[in-house]
Amino acid sequence: MTKGQDTKSAILATGLDMASKLSLESVTIGSLAKATGMSKSGLFAHFQSKENLQIEILKYAARDFTDKVVVPALRTPAGITRIRTLIDNWITWGGKLTGGCIFVSASTEFSERPGSVRDYLLHQQEEWIDTLQRIAQSAVKAGDFRSDINCEQFAFDLYSLLLGFHYYHKLLRNADTVRRQEKAFERLLDTYRGPQPTKER
Amino acid sequence: MTKGQDTKSAILATGLDMASKLSLESVTIGSLAKATGMSKSGLFAHFQSKENLQIEILKYAARDFTDKVVVPALRTPAGITRIRTLIDNWITWGGKLTGGCIFVSASTEFSERPGSVRDYLLHQQEEWIDTLQRIAQSAVKAGDFRSDINCEQFAFDLYSLLLGFHYYHKLLRNADTVRRQEKAFERLLDTYRGPQPTKER
Repeated sequence: MTKGQDTKSAILATGLDMASKLSLESVTIGSLAKATGMSKSGLFAHFQSKENLQIEILKYAARDFTDKVVVPALRTPAGITRIRTLIDNWITWGGKLTGGCIFVSASTEFSERPGSVRDYLLHQQEEWIDTLQRIAQSAVKAGDFRSDINCEQFAFDLYSLLLGFHYYHKLLRNADTVRRQEKAFERLLDTYRGPQPTKER
Repeated sequence: MTKGQDTKSAILATGLDMASKLSLESVTIGSLAKATGMSKSGLFAHFQSKENLQIEILKYAARDFTDKVVVPALRTPAGITRIRTLIDNWITWGGKLTGGCIFVSASTEFSERPGSVRDYLLHQQEEWIDTLQRIAQSAVKAGDFRSDINCEQFAFDLYSLLLGFHYYHKLLRNADTVRRQEKAFERLLDTYRGPQPTKER
């Protein structure tokens, strides 16, 4: 990394933290200049506009999400093991951000604000849902899931469960949430599970 | 209704619309005065503070939610019929607001903003979850659900599904969302369903 890239990463990390604590819309070139102690003109040189700054923060979060959530899961064996790893990683990742998953909160915030930020969020969320579908397909190939399942339905079911977990956890701070989520997750896996492959012949 | 109450309701309706389009935090005495064409001092006399105004908007939405979602469902026969009615009403109610369910978006927005607004949201959401639990209990009594179910788990499962629907519908605007939601809902009912009561003896 060059010194310029280092500086930019540090600015984006502060921006992500602000967005997570308050809202993405509250992160502007002015407010981020104040938070980082940099000049507005310096930040403007990096980001050109508020929208671009907000998108860069989301891209920074998306790279980290890919590195910490998706890639390590893809390194585990296809099937239920991979799905469990992905979900564990998702929960850990969101737990490290003050306000939980930035994509969930920003999507709620921007659903009625058409423009380049919403377009990027939509793209990122479609990629995530595609990942959930592909991971279900690979579970079918691995023999963990039945071959007649609908992978889009699985993605919807699983993401709904994660959104429920996120909501109970962040707002309600209910002590039973982890248990509820685990129970719902095991039942979901059972719904899609195929006949167990014979381990030894 | 007195003229004063009429005026207050009209102001709150405009406030709810603003909160739904942008965010609850964007509704202040100043921004609402502009939107309604009233004086700031007039609005201040009604609401005293921004936090109180935001809470009054949420209470206004909560009364409407009770009248249109919960009460009509409680008038239908206990059991699966009542659950279906409640869910249909929830979807219709959220669909009428620009940004979907105000409680979902405001809760996401305020989860990291401690104070009286978050306290009220938490209280309202706990009441809603309690409604889901009680409706599951009445389904057990009516014989539609098995007697060994966990009603808190049912509330978590059902609310997760609604949050998934809300997210897919508002952000992704996916044409298949209704079908996905219906399929997941029917499977959820099957999980909790008891032996069918004998209709005729």
